[in-house]
Amino acid sequence: MSDAVLAAAVSNAGGLGVIAAGNAPADYVSEQVKKAKTLTDKPFGVNIMLLSPHAGAVAEAVAEEAVAVVTTGAGNPQSYMKLWTDANIKVIPVVASTALAKMAQRSGAAAVVAEGGESGGHIGELTTMTLVPQICDAVDIPVVAAGGIGDGRGVAAAFMLGAAGVQVGTRFLVARECGVHQNYKDKVLAARDIGTISTGKRLGHPVRSLKTPFSRDLFAKEYDSSVSNEELEALGVGALKLAAVDGDMEKGCFLAGQIAGMIQKEQTAGDIIEDMMREAEAILKGAPVWVK
Amino acid sequence: MSDAVLAAAVSNAGGLGVIAAGNAPADYVSEQVKKAKTLTDKPFGVNIMLLSPHAGAVAEAVAEEAVAVVTTGAGNPQSYMKLWTDANIKVIPVVASTALAKMAQRSGAAAVVAEGGESGGHIGELTTMTLVPQICDAVDIPVVAAGGIGDGRGVAAAFMLGAAGVQVGTRFLVARECGVHQNYKDKVLAARDIGTISTGKRLGHPVRSLKTPFSRDLFAKEYDSSVSNEELEALGVGALKLAAVDGDMEKGCFLAGQIAGMIQKEQTAGDIIEDMMREAEAILKGAPVWVK
Repeated sequence: MSDAVLAAAVSNAGGLGVIAAGNAPADYVSEQVKKAKTLTDKPFGVNIMLLSPHAGAVAEAVAEEAVAVVTTGAGNPQSYMKLWTDANIKVIPVVASTALAKMAQRSGAAAVVAEGGESGGHIGELTTMTLVPQICDAVDIPVVAAGGIGDGRGVAAAFMLGAAGVQVGTRFLVARECGVHQNYKDKVLAARDIGTISTGKRLGHPVRSLKTPFSRDLFAKEYDSSVSNEELEALGVGALKLAAVDGDMEKGCFLAGQIAGMIQKEQTAGDIIEDMMREAEAILKGAPVWVK
Repeated sequence: MSDAVLAAAVSNAGGLGVIAAGNAPADYVSEQVKKAKTLTDKPFGVNIMLLSPHAGAVAEAVAEEAVAVVTTGAGNPQSYMKLWTDANIKVIPVVASTALAKMAQRSGAAAVVAEGGESGGHIGELTTMTLVPQICDAVDIPVVAAGGIGDGRGVAAAFMLGAAGVQVGTRFLVARECGVHQNYKDKVLAARDIGTISTGKRLGHPVRSLKTPFSRDLFAKEYDSSVSNEELEALGVGALKLAAVDGDMEKGCFLAGQIAGMIQKEQTAGDIIEDMMREAEAILKGAPVWVK
């Protein structure tokens, strides 16, 4: 979803842009990294989804490209840590429990992203509010908060919980530089607070997406034991591409977090960062957000 | 779980103590209210669980007792609003969506509790991080944040999200004045971050509790369509009492939120409130919680 163009735009605006490898093959990832290098001279990262069949090859590719930062999701990156740290890459695993955070620290992670289950995509059980302080207590490396952060209030709250920074996904889906189909952006903008659903819990790897005929059907089938786990897995194949590339409102799986309900406008990546930081600074300086 | 003794202790310490009516009959609730009145001259509230078979009678009872505050959970309190506001009771519904928050405001609610799904007991889908700001944007009455708040960091974060106050449940389970079985308290104190589980989603009213043989079995049976909804419902009957009164570690349903993993010691209700508020004040004044 996040490619070289969006990642470079975020890095140029003062954030740390991250290219999402998702289920893509290593060639695609290398190409996007090379492209991002032509679009920014700032550091950027690559997120590696460890459940991808290409995870191993992508891991090698990012080491070869010596990207500044690698983040990992949907699993334990331990087997790749040495490869990356040897290439002077700062590794920031996305973790959903204190046990995984401690393991990451022991393996040489530079920081961890503590991601709550309100996020889009692959999610854990704990929420940002409960996960961030517990991980801050468990490790000594910096903790980046993720999940449910869509404006300056969320940024300020994350700092109160002990985070050293924030990771923002859903709001950048509607960044002008984000290459997803316009239907995807429109669906995020139209989402209500209760607009997302979590599916895949029965398979042990839940995923949060916007409610569509596809996701509602998948949810219902999870409670039907006449549908096998293999059938459930098969239902999801290709659905991400149908959403992001084709904008298929029926069969697409539109990954997004619960904060989609709060997101109201398309903006450039730079404006998103500027707005969020300005709001957070004002609130942290004592602006009375809570006085009605 | 929260009775006259705990509610009065919380009110005497400067909080707003709340007696939980749960599934109890109206006589019990009236008796607890009368008892609390002898233990404190401060305002206190009663929480009415709207799925209780006794909800209607309890609603009448609290109106007769003219308690200061009624909070409601697990449903829409609209049909009782007039009864309570006519008795000069401030009604503060616990809500899990912006739609319900707006409906509460229209019906004369004095405030709402925006409760995230990291809470213990009956829960909604949205998390505290995503629910609180969206509800703050949706209504003009004060918003109290609940779910995942177990120390001063959580209190400070809630204020950043726009809350005017916080509701804390799980941490008071280990208050010295809380009357649950010692096994229940020990289980909260021993809980890890991943120590809770949400069951009942298939039935449409999910409940969060500590992992026990009972709750794990219930979770597994939800995905077994040979188990009927009626059988699932029947499995839960009596399990709360087995936890709170008998401390039955096998068959009890120990309601608790995800923040249980952070709770480390038994204290008086007064000390809990003092600690949380002192921490929150320090953090809000700029204490560097996020500097490692």
